[in-house]
Amino acid sequence: MSIRVTIWNEFIHEKESESVKLVYPNGIHNEIASSLTCSDFTIKTATLDQPEHGLTNEVLNETDVLIWWGHAGHDLVDDVVVERVKDHVLRGMGLIVLHSAHFSKIFRSLMGTSCTLNWRDNDRERVFCCNPGHPIAEGLPAYFELEHEEMYGEFFDIPQPDELIFIGWFKGGEVFRSGCTFTRGLGKIFYFQPGHEEYPTYKNENIIKVISNAIKWAKPRNRISEINGPNTKPLEI
Amino acid sequence: MSIRVTIWNEFIHEKESESVKLVYPNGIHNEIASSLTCSDFTIKTATLDQPEHGLTNEVLNETDVLIWWGHAGHDLVDDVVVERVKDHVLRGMGLIVLHSAHFSKIFRSLMGTSCTLNWRDNDRERVFCCNPGHPIAEGLPAYFELEHEEMYGEFFDIPQPDELIFIGWFKGGEVFRSGCTFTRGLGKIFYFQPGHEEYPTYKNENIIKVISNAIKWAKPRNRISEINGPNTKPLEI
Amino acid sequence: MSIRVTIWNEFIHEKESESVKLVYPNGIHNEIASSLTCSDFTIKTATLDQPEHGLTNEVLNETDVLIWWGHAGHDLVDDVVVERVKDHVLRGMGLIVLHSAHFSKIFRSLMGTSCTLNWRDNDRERVFCCNPGHPIAEGLPAYFELEHEEMYGEFFDIPQPDELIFIGWFKGGEVFRSGCTFTRGLGKIFYFQPGHEEYPTYKNENIIKVISNAIKWAKPRNRISEINGPNTKPLEI
Amino acid sequence: MSIRVTIWNEFIHEKESESVKLVYPNGIHNEIASSLTCSDFTIKTATLDQPEHGLTNEVLNETDVLIWWGHAGHDLVDDVVVERVKDHVLRGMGLIVLHSAHFSKIFRSLMGTSCTLNWRDNDRERVFCCNPGHPIAEGLPAYFELEHEEMYGEFFDIPQPDELIFIGWFKGGEVFRSGCTFTRGLGKIFYFQPGHEEYPTYKNENIIKVISNAIKWAKPRNRISEINGPNTKPLEI
Repeated sequence: MSIRVTIWNEFIHEKESESVKLVYPNGIHNEIASSLTCSDFTIKTATLDQPEHGLTNEVLNETDVLIWWGHAGHDLVDDVVVERVKDHVLRGMGLIVLHSAHFSKIFRSLMGTSCTLNWRDNDRERVFCCNPGHPIAEGLPAYFELEHEEMYGEFFDIPQPDELIFIGWFKGGEVFRSGCTFTRGLGKIFYFQPGHEEYPTYKNENIIKVISNAIKWAKPRNRISEINGPNTKPLEI
Repeated sequence: MSIRVTIWNEFIHEKESESVKLVYPNGIHNEIASSLTCSDFTIKTATLDQPEHGLTNEVLNETDVLIWWGHAGHDLVDDVVVERVKDHVLRGMGLIVLHSAHFSKIFRSLMGTSCTLNWRDNDRERVFCCNPGHPIAEGLPAYFELEHEEMYGEFFDIPQPDELIFIGWFKGGEVFRSGCTFTRGLGKIFYFQPGHEEYPTYKNENIIKVISNAIKWAKPRNRISEINGPNTKPLEI
Repeated sequence: MSIRVTIWNEFIHEKESESVKLVYPNGIHNEIASSLTCSDFTIKTATLDQPEHGLTNEVLNETDVLIWWGHAGHDLVDDVVVERVKDHVLRGMGLIVLHSAHFSKIFRSLMGTSCTLNWRDNDRERVFCCNPGHPIAEGLPAYFELEHEEMYGEFFDIPQPDELIFIGWFKGGEVFRSGCTFTRGLGKIFYFQPGHEEYPTYKNENIIKVISNAIKWAKPRNRISEINGPNTKPLEI
Repeated sequence: MSIRVTIWNEFIHEKESESVKLVYPNGIHNEIASSLTCSDFTIKTATLDQPEHGLTNEVLNETDVLIWWGHAGHDLVDDVVVERVKDHVLRGMGLIVLHSAHFSKIFRSLMGTSCTLNWRDNDRERVFCCNPGHPIAEGLPAYFELEHEEMYGEFFDIPQPDELIFIGWFKGGEVFRSGCTFTRGLGKIFYFQPGHEEYPTYKNENIIKVISNAIKWAKPRNRISEINGPNTKPLEI
């Protein structure tokens, strides 16, 4: 059965910056959408400038896995939409959080921490796999390299992940927990560090493979209409 | 060195209900305070009806571990105070969340989930230890019993705990993850299920031992004045 | 693509005990094999009395997920076969360990602990799900009941599971971590507590659903021919 | 109350290699012993060449935390002693495993995995803390540097740690989970990667602080004389 994917992008840098436009002329969302060639995926996109940011209950009800890219526009995301997305995650929708979306309202709200980190422009990164049996690592090499990527360094203020899958090495002298899984309610969440808007990260086949694997891993298993309420009758024994 | 403990209680039921007043005439906060006889603890209390709920920055700066009991007054807690407490936790202050405080604003904000559960009045509980080497289990038996306790049952909508220490068995036919640890930022958090206001749970020596152990476990190790900010200079290699 | 499942059973009780024979006339392995109706599974069985216990390298090379049931014959399992199975698990083969196999050589070797527990014959069990979004919980209710099951109680001496999925409640007054996942090397391991030989546990549709889900979850993702060796050359930077 | 520490060292390189002898003339065990200046510690040492490797039941009964350094002599350690140490760990004794002891019999037996890793001589390492609120990180900076250390790189074949505290960055282009905690039975285990015999790692104050913190963290909380046996009587309800 097909997995219904919605790729959300704030879609700001690609319209405002000439250098970013050169890399992703149709926006990061469309770049990822066109690269995810798995025939099991049904892909839609949504952006900040749409009504309700394109994330109505109708859209979310028909979304199995939501991908989130944001950076400059975190504060422009309506709190009502954030609560709505959170509600869907807790009831089972999968969520993939990319790169600078570590600071998005939805990720910080689900983590309960500041999600701060250290950072620096343009470094060389190696992404090492430290959980090679995990579904998200399927088909990936022991490590792969990104010639240009923004450095994200520890301490990354997140709760201890359920599983740590990738660790990033940066030439400038830092490390980062680059691929982390979390569970919130019935929803599966994957945070993945690479993806600066100025570099062609989303044209890298290993990056796309990770995202593709993460979609399959994050799909809902027992989506529910509401989290359980009180049960005041004793179970019969 | 002494551990500075602040016990926060909404202090509503003990003033409004005759039956609760009989059990805890001075309030749950004072009951716990008088029972924590460890000479290493310096104990203060704070309540909902105080200015800023008794939780000013001055108080929190001098608090190593904050204990939280709430139920009827969750919504009455000022969001500004919740954010302040959360900030102190992320920077290293310990937090112990008791019983019905599973639904407190501070706990839900730190967990990122709904924190719902099933419940029913008055059952018999057995609290089993499933991590007997943990500091919070020090000196505790394999299990202990509470003749009367409110039933809390799974599914408890929390993130996977860092460590599961106690599991509750209820005669009526339910189980519960009754003692759970979490880390958020630099702060250690312990959730402990027993403690309904109508029963003398906080007069039970095993319950007090758990809370006492949890205080020692949750004390700050590296309290900081702010979570790390950006580091834009390459480390020198 | 089909998942190749090998169901291993010591197959002792069913031949020696009349009462067990009545429940599982063809052995627990064949009962499970005939109940797993998923068309994606290719199922074989193996037993203790076969040469090399039916677990040659040829068989294991063609096994994606190995299911293990043992009890009276743990000590009769050849250490060479145990090491062989362990090697396949570390290189990616899935392993599902059922009931009394908590004391099998292979499980204890992979856990590194004693795997002791408390137990008592014939009790009523409720199996609660505390991770309803997990693939192994797909399609399962909030809890289900087993009219007759052997009581297994805490403390269960296992390492902290990667994920705790089920908790058992026993009428006699105990709890148990009944469904636990572990990763060892590249292999996924699931321990599942129900399954005493005297009761028709493996005829229960919820039990079969859990095992079926666990097979899909445990299938290898990156099976390798050997765990990595030394890399003495600097990566080029 | 004093924590009784036994530092075990195979003590081979320091006697056989002139270059190692220059760094640690009295052996790594005595170097560590003399550096651990905490007045709460009562320190003894033991070595491979002693009867029963200096690890009789009498010694282990009086050991709260055992530190283990080994490399060339892993295979020379008697299996009987390994089983004895493991039994003490499961019953609550703390264990700190240093550097090349990742391949020791005791560590591999407790982990249940191959404990392989990638390695290369002489690189520059940075040790980053990714769990700054943890007791083992108390007083440590955000990162510290080792001018010369052996490179250990991922994939490190260990079970998912209970807590990941340090990540190592190597100039040559690798990362490593350098500080990991595990629980086995009632025993707390800490693996710490730095400590090659040719470099003065154990003269580094940050390294000694980590080991000192780990001793306090790993001390037994509920040491028992045997892991629980069967309980065949129903608990009274």
